[in-house]
Amino acid sequence: MPPAARRAALRALLPAAGVEAMLLTDVVDIRYLTGFTGSHAALLVHADGDARSVFCTDGRYRTQAARQVPDLERVEDRASALALAAAVPGRGIGRLGFESDVVTVDGHAALAAAAEGVDLVRAPGLVRGLRVVKDDAEVATLRAACAAADAALADLLAAGGLAPGRTEREVALDLEVRMRGHGATAPAFETIVAAGTHSAVPHHRPTDAVLAAGDLVTLDFGALVDGYHSDMTRTLVLGPAAGWQRELYALVADAQRAGRAALAPGADVVAVDAAARDVVAAAGRAGEFLHGLGHGVGLEVHEAPALSPRGSGTLAAGMAVTVEPGVYTEGLGGVRIEDTLVVRDGGPELLTLTTKELVEVGG
Amino acid sequence: MPPAARRAALRALLPAAGVEAMLLTDVVDIRYLTGFTGSHAALLVHADGDARSVFCTDGRYRTQAARQVPDLERVEDRASALALAAAVPGRGIGRLGFESDVVTVDGHAALAAAAEGVDLVRAPGLVRGLRVVKDDAEVATLRAACAAADAALADLLAAGGLAPGRTEREVALDLEVRMRGHGATAPAFETIVAAGTHSAVPHHRPTDAVLAAGDLVTLDFGALVDGYHSDMTRTLVLGPAAGWQRELYALVADAQRAGRAALAPGADVVAVDAAARDVVAAAGRAGEFLHGLGHGVGLEVHEAPALSPRGSGTLAAGMAVTVEPGVYTEGLGGVRIEDTLVVRDGGPELLTLTTKELVEVGG
Repeated sequence: MPPAARRAALRALLPAAGVEAMLLTDVVDIRYLTGFTGSHAALLVHADGDARSVFCTDGRYRTQAARQVPDLERVEDRASALALAAAVPGRGIGRLGFESDVVTVDGHAALAAAAEGVDLVRAPGLVRGLRVVKDDAEVATLRAACAAADAALADLLAAGGLAPGRTEREVALDLEVRMRGHGATAPAFETIVAAGTHSAVPHHRPTDAVLAAGDLVTLDFGALVDGYHSDMTRTLVLGPAAGWQRELYALVADAQRAGRAALAPGADVVAVDAAARDVVAAAGRAGEFLHGLGHGVGLEVHEAPALSPRGSGTLAAGMAVTVEPGVYTEGLGGVRIEDTLVVRDGGPELLTLTTKELVEVGG
Repeated sequence: MPPAARRAALRALLPAAGVEAMLLTDVVDIRYLTGFTGSHAALLVHADGDARSVFCTDGRYRTQAARQVPDLERVEDRASALALAAAVPGRGIGRLGFESDVVTVDGHAALAAAAEGVDLVRAPGLVRGLRVVKDDAEVATLRAACAAADAALADLLAAGGLAPGRTEREVALDLEVRMRGHGATAPAFETIVAAGTHSAVPHHRPTDAVLAAGDLVTLDFGALVDGYHSDMTRTLVLGPAAGWQRELYALVADAQRAGRAALAPGADVVAVDAAARDVVAAAGRAGEFLHGLGHGVGLEVHEAPALSPRGSGTLAAGMAVTVEPGVYTEGLGGVRIEDTLVVRDGGPELLTLTTKELVEVGG
């Protein structure tokens, strides 16, 4: 869907929101609506159409904006949101929507001062609501991002790069460089490499700790491709797995399978989480599953929907989500298995294609 | 300054802010006040002391929080800010400060609902105001981050890595890998490599464009070390510089020197910007200097103060800032020269030590 079609989809929501125009200030939402990839911009989307809409960024992005946003009126101002707000009264807009889940309390006060006499109306989540269902081009980009991560891990293993004696940091850098070689512009987020007891820490940061034979090693990493993020976790064992490692792995794999099987249009996100969580609970380890089951993924690595006991709403075809149960025993080790998938009518489409069998490296 | 001393400094500000306690929700501010390096937390700082203060994060960070924040009461909740807000009435706090420059309009509504009967008082920028002046340990970390960037560029040049035939992307990755080798945990921001006409785009993203003899090449990059960001830009020429390149470089170097010379405790940030901008304007090229002169740098790559025509306030000893004038001729090329420095009484301390003479690579 080209940006103009996305703006049309947003415009269709404005009457129900009770506004004549919408002021966007979230740079990711603006990228979605315009294709602009800079770090600073504001966008006024008028219900009447693109002819009355305006894009604003600052001088650093002059040539980039001309190239990426040729189809909208452009103005240049360092205080983009305030500049657009100040122009609103002169454009005959009486009720202006703003992203109340993005704009800060102080930012709102500044907007109100700039747009004198205009009603500022809370309109949270409109663009995020559109972003949650991915079109074919977005899925293709996510697929490429997931493929870069799959290929990097395959390369790492083929090169013997996951082995006793290397540090967590070395393995993280190795994965990131290999992802770049497969088309990533950057890691999608800070790569997690957690070996031995560190694998019991869900968001461990790589250290100079040295990998040792017998360690569980959790790799949680992703590639950024054209603004889209992949997200995959695998836990492997360095050498033959001990009984407790095998048992723990099987439990998490069962939970992950149950979570994936629950992905379907119309499914409640709490029920999807529960499908996996119940498997862990049945083994008496509910207290060791320390986070939600998954999250949406796209232009942000964490976006709606949240697959979690505290989430709300139902899935729809085209949503891209992770499924990533984990069980963590403090001081001993943990296992997490995570895929990125797209919700489809006939069952989810798997985008991360690395095996989920227990891999015993060099074992 | 250990985290406890920073919390004490914040507590000293609370009476003037008219609050009995402050609810922090910005994760960087919380890192500064506690040492916690996770991605999600909230912190209640009570004017009475640490004994009545509370730290909250979620289950993913259980072991990390215990290790990094041993000196505060800890609670665990996925909705950390709301959990702390809900506890406020029971703790006898009547007036609670919040970061109105961080909390969104919707977030504020949720806090108000959670902290029933409590006065929520806008208290923006208190911690940012503390963060702006760096202590010796922070400067030492910034120095290490700058050294990693200096060393990476020296390595790149020594290895012949900046040469015709390579792509912008290859050079960017090469710099990033070399920074990791010198102690960086990650790039401080998306590395800019802009060759030829791309150098006229201040925030160009690396592409597959191939470097050619005679190109200006702008490298804007930094290293992340222990949470602190370095930021340096150098523009080099591939081979002997043409007359216009030499002239443009000399102009920007003069402006940059003037900007650095203006750094002093008590200097107005607008005047510092003007010191450099006037040099560019005197050459009749004010319209090609498309951004502010510089910005603070520390736990964030862009933080206060802004050295800009629209900035406000004065410098103080211990502030870490960049000085980075640039002149950009669309369709032809541009030059930017940027250092990270610390404001000192006897003149600024330079942290980025790579030469600012015009380097003609292989020339």
